[in-house]
Amino acid sequence: MNQELYYTKEISLENGELMLDETLFHNANGYIGVRGAFEEGYPEGFESIRGQYINGFYDITDMKQAESLYGLVEEKQTMLNVADTQGIWVDVGGTTFSLFDGEVKKAVRYADMKKGITGRIIEWLSPDGHELCLEFKRMTSFIRRPLFLQEISVTSHNYNGHVTIRSGHIGQVQNYCDPSDPRVADKSMQYLNISEIHRQGECSFILAKTSRSGLEVCTGVWHLVPDGYSHRIEEKETEIIHIISGDIKSGQRLTFYKYTWTEDSLRSKNLIQTCRDNLEALADDPVDVLYREQEQYLREFWEKSNLTIKGDDELNRAVHFNQYALLQSAGRDPFGNMAAKGLSGEGYEGHYFWDTEIYAIPSFALIYPEIAKNLLYFRYQTLEKAKENARKLGHRQGALYPWRTINGEECSGYFPSGTAAYHISGDVAYAAVFYYLATDDIDFMCSQGAEIIVETARLWIDTGNYYDGRFQIQDVTGPDEYTCMVNNNYYTNALAKFNLEWACKCREILENQGQWKELCTRIGLKESELDEFERAAECMLLPYSRTLDINPQDDSFLMKKKWDFETTPEENYPLLLHYHPLALYRRQVCKQADTVLSHFMFEEYQKTTTVRNSFLYYEQITTHDSSLSTCIFSIMAARLGMVRKAYQYFGDSAKMDLFNTHGNTKDGIHTANMAGTYMAVIYGFAGLRIRKEGLSLSPCIPGAWEEYSFRFSYGKTRIEITVNRENCRVARIDGPAVQLFLNGKEYVLEDITLSKVRGEGEIWDIKDSISAG
Amino acid sequence: MNQELYYTKEISLENGELMLDETLFHNANGYIGVRGAFEEGYPEGFESIRGQYINGFYDITDMKQAESLYGLVEEKQTMLNVADTQGIWVDVGGTTFSLFDGEVKKAVRYADMKKGITGRIIEWLSPDGHELCLEFKRMTSFIRRPLFLQEISVTSHNYNGHVTIRSGHIGQVQNYCDPSDPRVADKSMQYLNISEIHRQGECSFILAKTSRSGLEVCTGVWHLVPDGYSHRIEEKETEIIHIISGDIKSGQRLTFYKYTWTEDSLRSKNLIQTCRDNLEALADDPVDVLYREQEQYLREFWEKSNLTIKGDDELNRAVHFNQYALLQSAGRDPFGNMAAKGLSGEGYEGHYFWDTEIYAIPSFALIYPEIAKNLLYFRYQTLEKAKENARKLGHRQGALYPWRTINGEECSGYFPSGTAAYHISGDVAYAAVFYYLATDDIDFMCSQGAEIIVETARLWIDTGNYYDGRFQIQDVTGPDEYTCMVNNNYYTNALAKFNLEWACKCREILENQGQWKELCTRIGLKESELDEFERAAECMLLPYSRTLDINPQDDSFLMKKKWDFETTPEENYPLLLHYHPLALYRRQVCKQADTVLSHFMFEEYQKTTTVRNSFLYYEQITTHDSSLSTCIFSIMAARLGMVRKAYQYFGDSAKMDLFNTHGNTKDGIHTANMAGTYMAVIYGFAGLRIRKEGLSLSPCIPGAWEEYSFRFSYGKTRIEITVNRENCRVARIDGPAVQLFLNGKEYVLEDITLSKVRGEGEIWDIKDSISAG
Repeated sequence: MNQELYYTKEISLENGELMLDETLFHNANGYIGVRGAFEEGYPEGFESIRGQYINGFYDITDMKQAESLYGLVEEKQTMLNVADTQGIWVDVGGTTFSLFDGEVKKAVRYADMKKGITGRIIEWLSPDGHELCLEFKRMTSFIRRPLFLQEISVTSHNYNGHVTIRSGHIGQVQNYCDPSDPRVADKSMQYLNISEIHRQGECSFILAKTSRSGLEVCTGVWHLVPDGYSHRIEEKETEIIHIISGDIKSGQRLTFYKYTWTEDSLRSKNLIQTCRDNLEALADDPVDVLYREQEQYLREFWEKSNLTIKGDDELNRAVHFNQYALLQSAGRDPFGNMAAKGLSGEGYEGHYFWDTEIYAIPSFALIYPEIAKNLLYFRYQTLEKAKENARKLGHRQGALYPWRTINGEECSGYFPSGTAAYHISGDVAYAAVFYYLATDDIDFMCSQGAEIIVETARLWIDTGNYYDGRFQIQDVTGPDEYTCMVNNNYYTNALAKFNLEWACKCREILENQGQWKELCTRIGLKESELDEFERAAECMLLPYSRTLDINPQDDSFLMKKKWDFETTPEENYPLLLHYHPLALYRRQVCKQADTVLSHFMFEEYQKTTTVRNSFLYYEQITTHDSSLSTCIFSIMAARLGMVRKAYQYFGDSAKMDLFNTHGNTKDGIHTANMAGTYMAVIYGFAGLRIRKEGLSLSPCIPGAWEEYSFRFSYGKTRIEITVNRENCRVARIDGPAVQLFLNGKEYVLEDITLSKVRGEGEIWDIKDSISAG
Repeated sequence: MNQELYYTKEISLENGELMLDETLFHNANGYIGVRGAFEEGYPEGFESIRGQYINGFYDITDMKQAESLYGLVEEKQTMLNVADTQGIWVDVGGTTFSLFDGEVKKAVRYADMKKGITGRIIEWLSPDGHELCLEFKRMTSFIRRPLFLQEISVTSHNYNGHVTIRSGHIGQVQNYCDPSDPRVADKSMQYLNISEIHRQGECSFILAKTSRSGLEVCTGVWHLVPDGYSHRIEEKETEIIHIISGDIKSGQRLTFYKYTWTEDSLRSKNLIQTCRDNLEALADDPVDVLYREQEQYLREFWEKSNLTIKGDDELNRAVHFNQYALLQSAGRDPFGNMAAKGLSGEGYEGHYFWDTEIYAIPSFALIYPEIAKNLLYFRYQTLEKAKENARKLGHRQGALYPWRTINGEECSGYFPSGTAAYHISGDVAYAAVFYYLATDDIDFMCSQGAEIIVETARLWIDTGNYYDGRFQIQDVTGPDEYTCMVNNNYYTNALAKFNLEWACKCREILENQGQWKELCTRIGLKESELDEFERAAECMLLPYSRTLDINPQDDSFLMKKKWDFETTPEENYPLLLHYHPLALYRRQVCKQADTVLSHFMFEEYQKTTTVRNSFLYYEQITTHDSSLSTCIFSIMAARLGMVRKAYQYFGDSAKMDLFNTHGNTKDGIHTANMAGTYMAVIYGFAGLRIRKEGLSLSPCIPGAWEEYSFRFSYGKTRIEITVNRENCRVARIDGPAVQLFLNGKEYVLEDITLSKVRGEGEIWDIKDSISAG
């Protein structure tokens, strides 16, 4: 695996590529994120999204509705670009280094996912004929999360003379905007106002306050310079420039280190003092310590997962790239969740969506349960806001989580495909259940999980109603945003059914712990409510077409005309950027997996033939304009024995950002898809399922692969799966023995080798297998 | 009737009443409108919507969407408040007259609907002890429509001395706003920029240009003053003050006239010159001529309609008040239509809605067909824009009229209850048909009507699709805005059926005139399209519930829970101001008549029992939060033999603005409802119907009335109907004989007296009657 933990490419100076690389080579650690702009910037005329971000750090901005209606959201949170400390300008004999000047003999970038750094290596001939090698390294520490470290090495091949490093600490920054793209902010705002700027010794500090949210951030910058080099500071109104200078000789290599320490008022007090103390403490440790602890952290991470695909290096690398990006994106404290773009860009303004619950948590729960737990804690601590949100929507009970948020309040400006996506509440409940089943974390269930599950269950009771003996949910929007405000969206209803069922199951679980009564008292839960939950779950309408033997996406989906794909020009994709919502809503066309996703999450609700027919039906009308789609189609194709198809979808998912296939990776990575790539291996090819009934596997392998393997934890047991073309080996690494269903047959996992891997066209029915076991 | 053409009330100085009276006593003539603010204004701290408007004169302003989506409207037109020429300040011995100073012995306002003027009469004792009578009269001329005339009479009871009249011509004006009310503009904008301001002789002129629409307006002001009075002009940067002064003796009455002439660049050129020429021409005519021609115009108008209710003075006056307001509101040239608030206020920003087609045209067509024809011409001349709008929505053919507009382009900021209300296109087609049937104006049909009808029919073909053998229309919004983006809205589908049927009927009509081929060539209409129209009309799905024997409002309406009216506090109405749209959409609750309206317009599509059951069903769940509702319920109650109920609804409709029952008449009158009041008599109590099959009547009379009568024109025949408790008299005033169905029996109208009027509970079935006839 390890040789694949390295991604490198030649540097392109084409603007689109530069912006893309800012994303691909960003550094982040779940707390801070720094886009990979060149330290020295680009010449005039080049666009850049030069940003540094803090997870959960936001300002509030107006979001006027074109027509005001009661309860519509009129302000939103937006993730802020904070002080720019990336800037480093290397001056050699009067010429400032730039890849756009002189002669570039070699210029590569890399992301070293083993060491947790990115870098640039450049062989450069200056216009004056000085030959130099410059290396820039960057690291956001996974151990000391406020730390962003830059290393600059200058090696002279033929130059003797003066070197000056100017290093910026810029307080005046703005957020990126593009009025023509609904997926990023439409106007550039300066949100941060500098309240204090000063130097102390060789450190500089900028303290800034947001305009409306009342949050503060402080950045402290300090340098470690070679002996004999001088350091002075130029202080201006909104920025500080550190000027470091000295001499270099031909053949000499000089290395400079720039430390940025970030503190914010969500997490700390006395921000300047805290920054200073931490920078001082850093000065005591050699830089090597920082690099070593980073590598150690990552060694442990890669060992937890140890996902390896043999026989397909490109995909193997892509999978690791995606896993690594995910690790960089997920928050590690109660103030940060995982934004749709992680900390890699400003797309969707740093908002948290259901991506966390349906993609990230089912990934992290298996390899890094602490992260999954932290992501869930974010939802638990915003449960009160979700209840308030439900009241705004007219509900008398229950919790409606916001469709997009940073601080727990709804930021959706267009409610038909935002707030109306009630499934977000079910998604949170689903993730809580999933985490519990994967980890057996009963404390979580008692202290947070059950409460989330009951409060979201209450929402469904207040939202739906009985008609014709069935429990129905009207006017909601499912995952597919090409159809909005529909009745009985299959995904939503199935999820609500699951949510209600689990609200009832929580009773047994908590009663066993003697904690049920306390919960009932705390949230005023009545016995009769559980009966309501049970009845609604039992009577839940799950749309079904007898004619087609499929689950229609909603009550009226099949009545609509199919989208006319034949006459839709290639350049009109993604459709949302070229067609009015009504034109989309009125046709059978899906932006993404919707019913298909539900069949993955709740395959036991339908017969396999129905699941298969549905997959084939939706496949014809799904554009995958959403990045959350192909990974789910890959999983379900594998599930249904269409391994070649699963492999194609997997490739689409794995390469999305590395190959910029959606054309907007410049705005940030697609974290949900990145998790989806991982899921497509684990839940897709390996057919792993974690249910209340236990763990099950049904592995298959794409024709192009020799072997794949991965590790995961289940409860307190760590397991390793290895699948090749002949057999599947399931090994218990450590922890207690567990039961396991393998292709429907029950085993107790001590050490099992299964002799046959499913081939093309072979389907394994989880329902049958469980009853057989 | 005539004694009822006068509305008077004591002046209240309470702010809410002042704003209400500005609306109730506004002057308008279809071209200009002036709100009835006091000439001298109110003291500081009082709010006023002091406005003067021009029909169809607008600026363009941004309407940013909270979240941009393809095709959403991002700018809108807004009716402008133009130069303020209302201001007149009377100074007597150093004290300026104000109702808020001194002692007011008498203060009344009136609207004289016979003379076409409004006025104030005030007996006033100044703080200095001067006793005066002041009279202010205002007229917007129905003959010389750019003219706004003010008359000020000052009578001294005990004062000898100097009188100074300061008369304002103020160029700097803004529009009213209220950020808390979605029904008016949310921010106050100054749209008009003064480009020229100057005096010439005793006239002053202000020429101003809009910020973005490029339109210009000029106001010219001139005064006629008593002999011996001096006139001078003070010119400032944005305003001109005319100062008129002289002496008055005790017992003397002095009269001043202020003429404002308005020209705009939509309709005229050389605006200043045109204003000047017209003011000069006015100087040649005595003022009496202006008053006389106004009275003559109104005499003719009242004679056309001659609607009289005996035995119910209050309602009789209310009906006339409403008819008069309607006459003031409707445009008379191709540039102006009829705004939802007429020219009486800024509610809905001066936009034209379907109010014109479904309420105003079915009223004007009977008494003032020229106005109806002009309102339709507006739609004809914006047909190209409606076609462009359809293309924006992704339609390959057809015309989609804008939900709200001034210049023919969509101004709806929230498309789910705006642009999605596709019925607007059918409404326009319906009005064209209605006008044609009422007037037999074959020229209109050949030159405009048929083209509108065919282009709107084409829209339905492109919008709907066949499913299960029925033609269905998905994702549209019907009249009821408490349920949006539904499938097979009954109203819309019935209307589309009618529209498609008439597209086919147009063929026969135009072929008879030898004009069909020309139309086909002009708009590229193919033979096969007519087959499609016919088939879609025949197969149109009209939702029907066998269980309830009603027409559900849409496919899923009956599946929803009914709104919980019992626990809804009184202060939470109108619901739209207190509940999130989703809370409304998800329940059975109607803002207004929807299916019930359709049953009025197309009662032949259903059996009478279904119509009756539907009425009773929807009555239980309709809040009438829309002003367009009670009049329709009145019509249908009368139709269904529920005369007492019809009378109650009629009262609600008739008194809406006079008694400010919706609480927002300050923002302008509710023109659709005003037309609806008239319709409730003609189509409701008298049961008049105009169909292709002919004219029919089925009169009833409320218990509180002795008699009611009205006149209308049908083709070239003018008819008078008189209904009392014993019989109904139908008289042909002039024109050729016509066929007529009376309570289902066919007559040729020479002079008919019907011996029996329907009583409570008696229903007449139009289908039966027509087939019987």
